[in-house]
Amino acid sequence: MPIPTIKYYLREGLLPAGAATAANQADYGEEHLRRLLLIRALIDVGGVSVAAAREVVAALGAHADDPLELLSAAQTAVTPRHRPDRETPEWHTAKQRVLDLIAERGWLVYPLSPEIDLVADALAAGGSLGVTELFDNLGRYADSAASLAAVEVRTVLDRPDPAARMELVVLGTVLGEALFSALRLLAHQHESARQIGIPDAPPQKNPETAQ
Amino acid sequence: MPIPTIKYYLREGLLPAGAATAANQADYGEEHLRRLLLIRALIDVGGVSVAAAREVVAALGAHADDPLELLSAAQTAVTPRHRPDRETPEWHTAKQRVLDLIAERGWLVYPLSPEIDLVADALAAGGSLGVTELFDNLGRYADSAASLAAVEVRTVLDRPDPAARMELVVLGTVLGEALFSALRLLAHQHESARQIGIPDAPPQKNPETAQ
Repeated sequence: MPIPTIKYYLREGLLPAGAATAANQADYGEEHLRRLLLIRALIDVGGVSVAAAREVVAALGAHADDPLELLSAAQTAVTPRHRPDRETPEWHTAKQRVLDLIAERGWLVYPLSPEIDLVADALAAGGSLGVTELFDNLGRYADSAASLAAVEVRTVLDRPDPAARMELVVLGTVLGEALFSALRLLAHQHESARQIGIPDAPPQKNPETAQ
Repeated sequence: MPIPTIKYYLREGLLPAGAATAANQADYGEEHLRRLLLIRALIDVGGVSVAAAREVVAALGAHADDPLELLSAAQTAVTPRHRPDRETPEWHTAKQRVLDLIAERGWLVYPLSPEIDLVADALAAGGSLGVTELFDNLGRYADSAASLAAVEVRTVLDRPDPAARMELVVLGTVLGEALFSALRLLAHQHESARQIGIPDAPPQKNPETAQ
């Protein structure tokens, strides 16, 4: 890993200083390396901002024994920072639709969860452009999200010790999103090719040569 | 919508200039409004950068009749810009795992798709931190992505005219990601509460009062 990157993380308060061994040298242990890999995973792979990564790292220190606080910090990290207009009637209709979905399915979520508003943001933005399909497919999106989340939470609980679980909450939230997001885009390609057909690119007969 | 925002989009080349009606006035028509809503949906709700939104808007103009070019522009817009180290043996192992998955499932994707590398990024970043669960669950992630993508592509094809389809490719890619992402976080809350239980917050008996 490039030294300037490490220095940058130190300056930004993402990484604690090492044990000084000389005027311009410091010793970094196993814990430091692990923290460094965590930060890179969040920023480089998860696309999380430096500020958000700092919050996640702080939460890992402060709430190491509180899964819900940690979940909330990880969730905030993967949430975009801009806020669209929420004072329109269309937005309130969209939000009601989300609350109805939650009630119908009996989802146990905090009624003030910011994610409820984020779902409404996407529905309302689509609605303002005539994309009513997001409303129509809301249940299908919820089905996919629910079945994936059930696996992910079960996977966290399968870890034997609490500290290891906490780390998977953070990494699973961020890396799982990156993983799913890229797989969805690949699946779009496949489904487009399958449902429309690609005249200029016949299906690979021999996928081994595809690298 | 605030005037400075509109001026900013004009300066950034996201929005074409209106028809000048006086020295400091211009007329904006239906097309402009629609473009404005599209840009806001991409940036504010989708979390897309201004630079990426400019590319999507350009692609909508240049490739209005080419669904695959447009899909590629929309996919690039939702892809994080940083690039982790891809020269490690662990990364190549991760990439091979993705190529195997694609071959096993017969997915029709371009072998050089950047999304293949993004999946490998997430797997390798997890692997470097001992998160082997992402490998274990790769098939489940792929199942969820595939079933969602099948619905999304079908929804695009259900639109009657090509221009309307093209717009849904872009908006569905970006807004669908925002929608799914927020629903997944809500589903994590629900599954955590269901599988662990939340001692301080008993299940709502009456979801109607939850607003």
